[in-house]
Amino acid sequence: SPCAPYVCPMPPPASTQGARVFEEADPLVLSGGAALSEVDVVFDTYGTLDRDAGNAVLITHALTGDAHASDWWATMVGPGKPVDTNRFFVICPNLLGGCNGTTGPRSTDPVTGRRYGLDFPILSMSDLVAVHRRLIAHLGVSRLYAAVGGSLGGMQILQWALEAPDEIARAVLVAASSRLTAQNIAFSAVARASITGDPDFADGQYADGAGPRQGMAVARQMAHITYVSEENLERKFGRRFQRAESQPGFGVDFAVESYLDHQGSKFVERFDALSYLCFTRVMDYFDPFPHSPDGIASPDRADGTDGTGSPSGAEADSAGGWPDFLVLSFTSDWRFDTRHSVRIARELVGRGARVDFREIESPWGHDSFLFEIDGYQSAVTSFLA
Amino acid sequence: SPCAPYVCPMPPPASTQGARVFEEADPLVLSGGAALSEVDVVFDTYGTLDRDAGNAVLITHALTGDAHASDWWATMVGPGKPVDTNRFFVICPNLLGGCNGTTGPRSTDPVTGRRYGLDFPILSMSDLVAVHRRLIAHLGVSRLYAAVGGSLGGMQILQWALEAPDEIARAVLVAASSRLTAQNIAFSAVARASITGDPDFADGQYADGAGPRQGMAVARQMAHITYVSEENLERKFGRRFQRAESQPGFGVDFAVESYLDHQGSKFVERFDALSYLCFTRVMDYFDPFPHSPDGIASPDRADGTDGTGSPSGAEADSAGGWPDFLVLSFTSDWRFDTRHSVRIARELVGRGARVDFREIESPWGHDSFLFEIDGYQSAVTSFLA
Repeated sequence: SPCAPYVCPMPPPASTQGARVFEEADPLVLSGGAALSEVDVVFDTYGTLDRDAGNAVLITHALTGDAHASDWWATMVGPGKPVDTNRFFVICPNLLGGCNGTTGPRSTDPVTGRRYGLDFPILSMSDLVAVHRRLIAHLGVSRLYAAVGGSLGGMQILQWALEAPDEIARAVLVAASSRLTAQNIAFSAVARASITGDPDFADGQYADGAGPRQGMAVARQMAHITYVSEENLERKFGRRFQRAESQPGFGVDFAVESYLDHQGSKFVERFDALSYLCFTRVMDYFDPFPHSPDGIASPDRADGTDGTGSPSGAEADSAGGWPDFLVLSFTSDWRFDTRHSVRIARELVGRGARVDFREIESPWGHDSFLFEIDGYQSAVTSFLA
Repeated sequence: SPCAPYVCPMPPPASTQGARVFEEADPLVLSGGAALSEVDVVFDTYGTLDRDAGNAVLITHALTGDAHASDWWATMVGPGKPVDTNRFFVICPNLLGGCNGTTGPRSTDPVTGRRYGLDFPILSMSDLVAVHRRLIAHLGVSRLYAAVGGSLGGMQILQWALEAPDEIARAVLVAASSRLTAQNIAFSAVARASITGDPDFADGQYADGAGPRQGMAVARQMAHITYVSEENLERKFGRRFQRAESQPGFGVDFAVESYLDHQGSKFVERFDALSYLCFTRVMDYFDPFPHSPDGIASPDRADGTDGTGSPSGAEADSAGGWPDFLVLSFTSDWRFDTRHSVRIARELVGRGARVDFREIESPWGHDSFLFEIDGYQSAVTSFLA
């Protein structure tokens, strides 16, 4: 296979922990109105918290990530890395709605004694942030030295900065968006259709180890195409065949097909269908600047609609003072292209925040945020200095 | 629904006919080596053939088209249109491998008495062209006044021009490609995975009216995103909700989701899964200039591979003289962007052909070839004058 399993060069986290951050007497009231009477969160920590709790850095994961930042973000988090675990106390929670220990759709609803399944509430970005806020309080941190995230990770930090700007001193938003385009939503809608239409989805009542494997594989393959640049795929695979000779047929023949096939198979082993539905919707509905006239793909749109009605609309508490922002995009990212980051930067500047925006030259598409790229890690290092 | 059924403004064809163009004593020997002992073709004709058979224009359809050019290409074919049915005798065949009457995977194999299903041979572009060549001979035409096609339609005409350049006087290739990129192949691989992974695909042995409806709908939805431009989706739908109020959940909520849903549902009513597999593979394998150093997405690729081994490689019969070519691309087409057309034009010019290449300004993406666009229809009209 062209895709040998990634071998993590990093040590395991200093600590993987779990905490019940909301409980029956003090439930998490969601922005949609429902409540979760018990919320557990699983998180990794790296490094040591200073006495004054002033060196805490939060890492927020992307759509299909998990708490193990030293694994999936080894280019960013570790000893001597931009988020230097010799210097910072790093916290990376598995997201609310996820499938790696934190409360999510596959958890047992304490009220019914059954798994939530499709009864798990539709979450907003603000609900994800509510758990992060509670978690850092639980760890004795009242203000983060920094919060750093890519893609959906960056979107959580943007939401937090708008809700409680005094709780974050420095915010790093990489390849994020403040508003999905119709095309972004379209791709996630097709992914969901593939998952929920798989007979093995069984209305979300599948058993452990079962579930919509075929639907998930197709969803992931399609999404993966949007995470990498056309140029990258072309350089890596072009029209090469997987075997020495072409074997014409409908199965895998071109090398790029084998690569996608592998992406799909790996994915169904490590991620849950209901969590995928949950997080794609969190992203679809996120629109913290609903009244901004600036679109993304069509800045001069004529109809003036701007997607109001989002459950995640939020206004900054202007009394609290803003974090400093570092907003980064990548030239070849066509999932959230530079216009998405420009819009975030413009909106924040318009609200009085200090924003350092940079577009980084990279051939790797949206996935660039995971890689080591000239000017990228160094920008984060300087910003966090 | 935002997508009322398209009402055809055109009269029905002058004639819809069928012909057996290959038969047992004279089978179609395919470029892959297999033979089809009976090949029927269904085709529409419009207008009247001149006595000297000098006014015949062939229209070739795209991936999911059919013989009814006056329906799906009403902007191009009809009285007073660029392909003027008052002047030309227009022939539009349903493709070999299709599902609208011409021999394809759902036809009965005369040898076994059963449907071909997955035993239908893998076709090449040259095999599609072999049927067209036989058809025009059957109609008494030895040289076409012109051949006109968009996307896969244009690719057939390119193949024909390379194989038998003396049989076409004028060739119009719109939004075509001489080589799919790794990204193009990736999207078609995911579409096929969606179809063949649907349990109702049943190894291609599904009954009439049955078949992989879910897999086909997902495949079509995804493909449709690639046929339209991001800007177009954004202007048309943006983040509008389908109903007056958002109904957060995993079903249709945004208008763009309703649009895609409709695209998927329509498609499963009108096209066959096996034909879809067949044609996507014809496109994937098409590579008539395999030794050209020019890539598409990565012109400077370092590894020098160029996808040799394609069954459809062909060299022009330079003694025969070339057709005149009109090669058109559209600015917002990201399925086969302008680089694909530039490569075709460059290769043809390098072989001594006269090529008029134009990039047309259009916001409608790959589907632009179906629409009325400034400078597009007029270019074809002038070229055919």
